[in-house]
Amino acid sequence: MQGTRDYNPKQMAIREKVFSTITRCFKRHGAETIDTPVFELKETLTGKYGEDSKLIYDLKDQGGELLSLRYDLTVPFARYLAMNKITNIKRYHIAKVYRRDNPAMTRGRYREFYQCDFDIAGQYDAMIPDAECLKIVHEILSELELGDFRIKVNDRRILDGMFAVCGVPDDKFRTICSTVDKLDKMSWDDVKKEMVNEKGLSEEAADQIGSYVGLHGGMDLAERLLLDPRLSQSKQACAGLSDIKLLFSYLQLFQVTDKVEFDLSLARGLDYYTGVIYEAVLTQAGAAPASSDAQNGSEEGVSVGSVAGGGRYDGLVGMFDPKGRKVPCVGVSIGIERIFSIMEQKAEASAEKVRTTEVQVLVASAQKNLLEERLRLVTELWNAGIKAEVMYKKNPKLLSQLQLCEETGIPLVAILGEQELKDGVVKLRVVATREEVDINRSDLIAEIKKRTSEA
Amino acid sequence: MQGTRDYNPKQMAIREKVFSTITRCFKRHGAETIDTPVFELKETLTGKYGEDSKLIYDLKDQGGELLSLRYDLTVPFARYLAMNKITNIKRYHIAKVYRRDNPAMTRGRYREFYQCDFDIAGQYDAMIPDAECLKIVHEILSELELGDFRIKVNDRRILDGMFAVCGVPDDKFRTICSTVDKLDKMSWDDVKKEMVNEKGLSEEAADQIGSYVGLHGGMDLAERLLLDPRLSQSKQACAGLSDIKLLFSYLQLFQVTDKVEFDLSLARGLDYYTGVIYEAVLTQAGAAPASSDAQNGSEEGVSVGSVAGGGRYDGLVGMFDPKGRKVPCVGVSIGIERIFSIMEQKAEASAEKVRTTEVQVLVASAQKNLLEERLRLVTELWNAGIKAEVMYKKNPKLLSQLQLCEETGIPLVAILGEQELKDGVVKLRVVATREEVDINRSDLIAEIKKRTSEA
Repeated sequence: MQGTRDYNPKQMAIREKVFSTITRCFKRHGAETIDTPVFELKETLTGKYGEDSKLIYDLKDQGGELLSLRYDLTVPFARYLAMNKITNIKRYHIAKVYRRDNPAMTRGRYREFYQCDFDIAGQYDAMIPDAECLKIVHEILSELELGDFRIKVNDRRILDGMFAVCGVPDDKFRTICSTVDKLDKMSWDDVKKEMVNEKGLSEEAADQIGSYVGLHGGMDLAERLLLDPRLSQSKQACAGLSDIKLLFSYLQLFQVTDKVEFDLSLARGLDYYTGVIYEAVLTQAGAAPASSDAQNGSEEGVSVGSVAGGGRYDGLVGMFDPKGRKVPCVGVSIGIERIFSIMEQKAEASAEKVRTTEVQVLVASAQKNLLEERLRLVTELWNAGIKAEVMYKKNPKLLSQLQLCEETGIPLVAILGEQELKDGVVKLRVVATREEVDINRSDLIAEIKKRTSEA
Repeated sequence: MQGTRDYNPKQMAIREKVFSTITRCFKRHGAETIDTPVFELKETLTGKYGEDSKLIYDLKDQGGELLSLRYDLTVPFARYLAMNKITNIKRYHIAKVYRRDNPAMTRGRYREFYQCDFDIAGQYDAMIPDAECLKIVHEILSELELGDFRIKVNDRRILDGMFAVCGVPDDKFRTICSTVDKLDKMSWDDVKKEMVNEKGLSEEAADQIGSYVGLHGGMDLAERLLLDPRLSQSKQACAGLSDIKLLFSYLQLFQVTDKVEFDLSLARGLDYYTGVIYEAVLTQAGAAPASSDAQNGSEEGVSVGSVAGGGRYDGLVGMFDPKGRKVPCVGVSIGIERIFSIMEQKAEASAEKVRTTEVQVLVASAQKNLLEERLRLVTELWNAGIKAEVMYKKNPKLLSQLQLCEETGIPLVAILGEQELKDGVVKLRVVATREEVDINRSDLIAEIKKRTSEA
């Protein structure tokens, strides 16, 4: 099927490693997890995704409710909070979402793909949860060892304030914002053309926007802009800039400012953001396949793809509450498919073989007619919690049993033979060294446990 | 939405415990894992599920391929094997499947639900992989401590042979088989009525079937039936009976015959089975909600619901191979939703509180204006891999910080105060005992690790 893929055991082994790193981080920060159905009522998704709504997969009307496959995990989360009247929670959710997009599989873009979301809902003191989300992105990208990265930060209120002081009409804020969002893929000249020619903005307003969106820096830039004669006219922009300052002070305490940058060109497409927004990109050339449609070769440190993004959305939960009660939320979504692609490429390039099972010992026989003895022994091992296998053959050759171990990376072989059975021992063979040692049957389990815990 | 549910953090904690028990067992037996998309081409699912095909969820035709949500994990597995020309694999797959069934949520029946499948594909010596599947069911149901259970075993070839010698016309085998399958929910009288009145079977043939489907026992029953004057006329039945004998000999070595019973009434609805079939039921009254539509109160040891089932399907992969090449398969599916329901009821009945996070320590402050110090300390802990939280407030009261620990089960509190900061110590409080001890800042991480590994 277009834009989907099966995962084979090797890919799954990599995927599980990535998930476990991410889950460990989410749990380290005290998150609970929830799950929601893969489909939602169609109306739940309506009007949440702006121009991208056309990418939603609908289920066929088979005489019931009108259902759509979830487009992200944020809207189902907001629906869940409103429906259960939950006013504070820190939760993660790792699950598949669906978009009828043009698949670009080489760049890790699929129609079915995983999202790994972490969100903090609740009325808290400003910027503390927001800073923790960035800390989490920093931890995950560092632990996954994907190469260097940068986390861009901005605020919707700064963007709106900037649009206002640059003379963008109120009703064009969202559509101009969408165009600014393309700056990571298009040059400023092309973005400006779209603003003027397609969106009908005045050339003058566009140029004023242009003078801002090239700016990036740290807390110092926020301080400078608070003194900017035009931008400081906007209350909204000032609120955003003050929060950026506060955010950076917390990020310093979290020891993550090395990677975080305040960047006025960051816009993010989704409608529901109301405050801080952020996006993490890998900057190391070669770490990821450079996107072929990116025309930003002129920029220093070419970005090779967004791997995480998020922001604050204080209005979304209220859209699902009958009385419109708001629950402030901030969250981040890890772009896991691109990370898989990179990890897969790394695994292929590396000499080390990816094991797809965890079997510790193969129960083998050196002679014929020992199936029953093998089954008896493997039962003992299973019952003791040891990961073990036998070949499903009455009389397998010893060589083919040893080959199976080589192929699948099983480290130990417990070999039974007539003599061993008589002597009450098992020959334990270490596959890597070919060392063999006779172990008393009663000591075998302890011996295997000792040897596999060392490894 | 009808027949679906969100999982809250408490349910997820239970679910993850069940999954981890099951996954541990699958891995102990050397299984790899794969994943497939949630939807398949509609044609892939067509003609695989008999009368149940009407329960398949279709996606809306939005100008692309015709897609359906997967109905089980077996057909996608077979499609995967054929497409990738895989001739042997031992894999597990835990994922959601979809059926437009009448939901009966109180009995753990949903339209979206998890399946946990384990399958062995490959040409092997008879009954060894089949026996391992039963060993796995035995291990999982024992480890989950769901109460007593029974695993019923039969063989499609025995059923077909039985139908043949009882005078069922060839073209009625499948439909009569579906009726026999209802014996766990209907009395024999009602089943007979359906055979005669709805399926048009002769009364005589039905009575002959009736004389067989009441039989159950162990290896001895298979031996007896091999000498049965009528049944032994059927080559098919004899092949099935010999395999049941062989199966039981392996089950003895696997030490699981205490729970396994050869039962001629077991039929299983799906079309694709070709050999051994089995089904596990919980037998302990009260362990599970008794199904309200079950009319089998007269039977001894009333079965309260199937929790696992499977069998051999040697023809399914060949249906997806352009040249019809067959790959013999045998597998088992764990009915996880019913198990969740039981575990949830148990958790509710138990006094012990289910923790939904794994946080080991809350970083708290005894006075005002210590937010920065708290953030600095929690960063140290996170960077050392400790699961830690702070309250997202500038100046939380100590009491509310301690209450948070009580509510969410956080065992330790690291308390900062002016004096502690001056002395270079942290007050470590054990929530359960209220014991407090000053720890040197440089020893804190080691101390927390020591105390949480003890717990």
